Amino acid sequence: MKFGTSNIVLLLFLMFLSVFFVLTSKKFKHKPCKHLILYFHDIIYNGKNAANATSAIVAAPEGANQTILAGQFHFKNVAVCDDPITLDNNNLHSPSVGKAQGLYIYNTQNTYTAWLGFMFVLNNTDYQDTINFIGADPLMIKTRDISVVGGTGDFFMHRGIATLMTDAFEGKVNFRLNVAIKFYECW
Amino acid sequence: MKFGTSNIVLLLFLMFLSVFFVLTSKKFKHKPCKHLILYFHDIIYNGKNAANATSAIVAAPEGANQTILAGQFHFKNVAVCDDPITLDNNNLHSPSVGKAQGLYIYNTQNTYTAWLGFMFVLNNTDYQDTINFIGADPLMIKTRDISVVGGTGDFFMHRGIATLMTDAFEGKVNFRLNVAIKFYECW
Amino acid sequence: MKFGTSNIVLLLFLMFLSVFFVLTSKKFKHKPCKHLILYFHDIIYNGKNAANATSAIVAAPEGANQTILAGQFHFKNVAVCDDPITLDNNNLHSPSVGKAQGLYIYNTQNTYTAWLGFMFVLNNTDYQDTINFIGADPLMIKTRDISVVGGTGDFFMHRGIATLMTDAFEGKVNFRLNVAIKFYECW
Repeated sequence: MKFGTSNIVLLLFLMFLSVFFVLTSKKFKHKPCKHLILYFHDIIYNGKNAANATSAIVAAPEGANQTILAGQFHFKNVAVCDDPITLDNNNLHSPSVGKAQGLYIYNTQNTYTAWLGFMFVLNNTDYQDTINFIGADPLMIKTRDISVVGGTGDFFMHRGIATLMTDAFEGKVNFRLNVAIKFYECW
Repeated sequence: MKFGTSNIVLLLFLMFLSVFFVLTSKKFKHKPCKHLILYFHDIIYNGKNAANATSAIVAAPEGANQTILAGQFHFKNVAVCDDPITLDNNNLHSPSVGKAQGLYIYNTQNTYTAWLGFMFVLNNTDYQDTINFIGADPLMIKTRDISVVGGTGDFFMHRGIATLMTDAFEGKVNFRLNVAIKFYECW
Repeated sequence: MKFGTSNIVLLLFLMFLSVFFVLTSKKFKHKPCKHLILYFHDIIYNGKNAANATSAIVAAPEGANQTILAGQFHFKNVAVCDDPITLDNNNLHSPSVGKAQGLYIYNTQNTYTAWLGFMFVLNNTDYQDTINFIGADPLMIKTRDISVVGGTGDFFMHRGIATLMTDAFEGKVNFRLNVAIKFYECW
């Protein structure tokens, strides 16, 4: 078989096509490269539960105090949390695999929504595994997506989406969240 | 035409060149893949404007109160916002397409600068479109760039830069910002 | 030399291999594309040091005041900082190259850990260079990694990891941090 100029053109075309295909498929690959499901448990300090409270109101609208969530959808309340993370959803007392730490801010005047800035710090004796989150938590919606903006250790440079779901709650001050973390950029 | 070894070498060379070119152009592509211009309107609660205030001071330096921004460039004031977003700049009362929610912190002792951590939550009946922002807002500079660190829904995994510009203000407690969002990573 | 079908197959195979190799090496390239070492200096306001304090407590647990860090590992204290950044570690009074601004939140009940949300704003007469950080700072550990989630100007769209190390401290209210910033995504 002879190999003519047209074949070279064909080869070059195929080459560009494959480069384009690989880059395009990367750019729009909506399939997670890593997946985690965890639970975290939040009990807001109410002035009486210091022994087992895991979070506390640190800022409140004028005139309000820090042991009860403010009226009007808790608008203007800022809370700091130090919540145990568990692998199963049985209860708060199953062994903790880490802590969810950071803040949440009730920031809506006409419904329950929080701005979240927090991290997961996972137990690891060798190095520090953390996952950093930021995003909107409209509590009245069944599943809420927030951004995973970075991580360290096992989650070095990772990015993704975390889906929050309220798994259980007692009153407004004791709740458990199911967090499904899907990483789309894994390094 | 005969096809010799030198031609194979040439082909391989062209191949590597094209791969290199495509990857390099991606890495330094400073051309946005998506572009949005929106406005948001912030009216700080001053003790008298509860009916139309959209934000409020929730933390202040010792001795200061929460109905007036502190002296010394508002250093140490923390505010929570729930600001309507509009498509045009006419006024606060044009139809809102969403909310800008989160916090801003006046963090400079010798000029007006804020650290911003907030999100845009856009109206959408089908799913939740959010854009997450973080960055420095030196208010006295005409245009200020902040980071777009993630998003959900239509803005799934997006990253980019948002340029803030004060579009109008009355006093220090009522202002409108023009936000030009340029996404450079679109998925 | 004749150029048969098998050679074409070989060429195509090599082509795919090289594309795969380049993409893979990008994805797992743990070698920084840019590297910076800076220091920042934090002096918490204690009611008496207004002249040289660079940060202040703006929120505290119920009953606590804002001129002394709270007991129980400062849990629930929120501080705002406006800290000078220097190139060397000699002292606070060497020329500043910028400011570290944002907030830190003591968020652990049984050790010293802070959630950090802050930025470096670097001096530049032409445009605004900023680097945005978010992450966990477990103060009792020698080196702590946090996420670099974005930047502007010279650090446009950059991502990476910053390693914090306490370089010196006097009491709990005056400390200097060494920050080694490694960018892995440079644009």
